Formats: sequence, C-alpha cells, structure tokens
Amino acid sequence: MAGILEVVSLGPGDAALLTPQCREALGRAELIVGYKRYLDLAPPELLAGKELLSTGMTGEMERAGAALDAARAGRRVAVVSSGDAGVYAMAGLVLELAAERGLLTELDIRVLPGVPALAAAAALLGAPLTHDFACVSLSDLMTPWEVIEKRLDAAAGADFVLVVYNPRSRKRDWQLPRALQIVARHRGPDTPVGLVRNAYRPGQAVSAARLADFDAEQVDMLSILVVGNGSTRLEAGRMVTPRGYMAKYGRGE
Amino acid sequence: MAGILEVVSLGPGDAALLTPQCREALGRAELIVGYKRYLDLAPPELLAGKELLSTGMTGEMERAGAALDAARAGRRVAVVSSGDAGVYAMAGLVLELAAERGLLTELDIRVLPGVPALAAAAALLGAPLTHDFACVSLSDLMTPWEVIEKRLDAAAGADFVLVVYNPRSRKRDWQLPRALQIVARHRGPDTPVGLVRNAYRPGQAVSAARLADFDAEQVDMLSILVVGNGSTRLEAGRMVTPRGYMAKYGRGE
Repeated sequence: MAGILEVVSLGPGDAALLTPQCREALGRAELIVGYKRYLDLAPPELLAGKELLSTGMTGEMERAGAALDAARAGRRVAVVSSGDAGVYAMAGLVLELAAERGLLTELDIRVLPGVPALAAAAALLGAPLTHDFACVSLSDLMTPWEVIEKRLDAAAGADFVLVVYNPRSRKRDWQLPRALQIVARHRGPDTPVGLVRNAYRPGQAVSAARLADFDAEQVDMLSILVVGNGSTRLEAGRMVTPRGYMAKYGRGE
Repeated sequence: MAGILEVVSLGPGDAALLTPQCREALGRAELIVGYKRYLDLAPPELLAGKELLSTGMTGEMERAGAALDAARAGRRVAVVSSGDAGVYAMAGLVLELAAERGLLTELDIRVLPGVPALAAAAALLGAPLTHDFACVSLSDLMTPWEVIEKRLDAAAGADFVLVVYNPRSRKRDWQLPRALQIVARHRGPDTPVGLVRNAYRPGQAVSAARLADFDAEQVDMLSILVVGNGSTRLEAGRMVTPRGYMAKYGRGE
C-alpha cells in the first residue's frame, strides 16, 4: 500500500508562524526529510522520536528521491522547506521527480502552504507589497544570468515592486550590485530598498535605505531584499507602497 | 496611553492555515476591524465577546481610520485581511493613514504575516511558483488599465510565471480576456493556466487548462489565476514549473 508524502512549509522558522496544518503533518510523519538547516527550524518536539533524513544544500535530488521511495514503501513522509514549500522550494522537485517515475497517480502527494519569506520580510519592513510585485532569484546556478537580467529589467521597467531572493552569497558577490544597477535605470536614487536578514529567527535584522546609498556588502544568503516601485516611500522607517486609496479619497499622494 | 494596532493575516480562511501568532493577536484584541466577508473567515470562537467593526468592501478608509482612533484611545485593536495582510491588503492603508496623521511613532503598529492567496493557490495547483513570478491585479479601479497592460506584457515577455489577483468581477468582465491576449503574445497555446476558486474554503474548485482553451467566463472575484512560464507543464493534472534541478542532474527536461 502506497504511503503519503506531504511537502511541508516551515515558514520563516518561528513556531508562531508555523500553520496548524503543517504542524499536524510533521506530527503524523514517520520520516521527515530536509536540508539540515531547515530541520533545525522545525520545532524540536515535533522531530523527537522520528526518523530524520537530512542532507546538505545540494542534496535536493537525493532527498526527493528518498522521500518518494519511502512513500512508495507505504510510509508517511514529510519533506520540509523553509518559507513556503512552493516558492523556490522543494514542492517542484518532488512533483517533477514523481512525474518522471510515474508516481503522481500512485502516491498521495500533497503540498501544504505556509508563510513565504516574501510575506515575512514585507511584514517586518512595513507594507511594500500592497501593489503588483515580482520575485526574482539572483542565483545563476541553474538559471542563465542573461535570463535574470532580462527579468530584472522588465520588472523594474514596468514599475513592479521587486522581491529579490538569494541576493548574495560568498561565491556569488557581483550579481547584486549588477542587479541594482539595472534597477537604477528605471528608478530614482531615493527609491527605498528594504533588507531583512533572518526574518523571525535569532539574529533578525531589518533596515531600509535609499537605492543610491544601499550597501550590497551587508547582504548574505539569509537575506531578502525588497526594492520599492516608483511610488513606494519610507514613512518613519517603514516601507509603504500606496495602493491608490489615498488618491481615490482625494487625500493626494 | 496609546494602544496597539495589529494588522492580522487570516490566511485563506481555513483555521488550519491561521498562524498561531495571528490567532493570539485576535484573542487579545479588544476591537476587531474588518470587511464583513473577512470577519466571516475568522474562527468564530475568537470573535465571541469582542467588539466588531465591519464595513463593506469600499469602506477600507473608514475601517483604517476607526482602527487608528481606537488604538490612539488606548485600545488593543486588530485589523484583519484575508490571505496575507501585506499583499494587496490592509497593511498599506493603515500605515499610510497613520503616517498622514503623524501616528507612526506614537502608536505601536505591527503587521503579522500569513499564508497569502498566491501560496494557497499554488499549493493546490501543484508547484507553479518554483521559479521567478510576478503578481498582477487586474482591478483597474485604482490603477490605470494602461499600467496593468504594461506590467502583463513585461512580465509575460520576460518569462515570469504570472499570478493574477482580482481577475474578474461582474462589473469588470473584459479585463481578463484582454490580459490573456497579452500573455498569448509571448506564450504558446499549450501554456498551463491554473484556476483556484475559494482556496481552502467551502466551495473550493481547482482546475488547469491550456491557455488556448481557457474559459474566462468561469472566473469570478473569489478566484486566483496562475499562468505558467515557458517551461511550466501539466503532469497528471498538476502544474509544475521546473527550477532547473532535473537539467542540472542530467535528467533532461
């Protein structure tokens, strides 16, 4: 009898942001599979007594394969991601690999949504995402840099708020300054840029700066950036993108 | 003494997707302010015995103002939004109005993140958001249609997955067909289009179709659309956007 595979969203890491649905899924899982750093984000009491399978960051394919194997053997499996499991995370690889192996109809595979990093960062910054926005990952490990540049240019040119995932790591240090140059073709020097590091985790840091003053050196792989659109402003340190209500009500913007 | 105003994310509506943080905020609030339809989504036991202030959909300004007044009078106030309060929702208006009234430093205003509609819809459809995506609202009540068209064209042209909020209402019926025409300039007829109505609520409906076959008539204001990028495919009814892992591992896509 085939088991159940649940792709579980851990949210930013704070148990207060873990949904009851995902908490229950972890509770009933026999095997919990995840990148080591993500397993560390799950409430320890939910992992106690469970079989855990963790691998390094590049072990995604191995993890997805092992999870499918275990579910096929009738076990109850949870694959965990930080943030929302569907946003730049494991849900896609699990479903791709299941399709390749012809398991999508045989297994019961469920994706359980959570609080994505973009929502966590936005809440800490104020309200930058109240109008149209685009999410771009600066990781060029699996996406050609030309494609990333094209997306940054298109999104900035059409006045989207930009959410930047994977902005910088020790090995990828030139991409963020280049991305900000592209944005600056379309946005003024006063455009607010919000930076959130370790949202809702120990070491949380939240700041906002002008695009012209933004220091890319302070950014690391645990950070998310939000670049305002042409209307976004800083109000007492909070990033706010007007949706248009104030103009509608004749308050003027 | 000034009170506390918490902007609370209800998530899609199912209590299993309400974060503990937001549940606690509702529990300790003295006054809960929200659009009637959103208050109906909150767990009834959390509203029992509370003062509630609800208005129609166009009463956002009135709600935000009343919430600020009450917080200023020392009360503990929760302003609720469905989904994530920061994504096309009340967080922006509350902060804008607080700034206009000079209350941002006087009051303790917190935005509490939640599960946004985009994550709920994506989870039900499969894994369409595992690569760069753009969110566009088709509501032209407060945004000129020309701006919306420009964003759709730019995002589709740069191969973003598209998440379409507010796709259609009784009064706004021509915008969605027009939007899909714009997308079709850049995407083939087989591009998957996912439709989720009433995600995690009674009456939930999930479907996916080819762009060329998509019937806009079935869409209403409780729906969210996800249009795939050039790589998104349907696998046994699930929408999957490859992130590139399979290519990286030589499995071919």
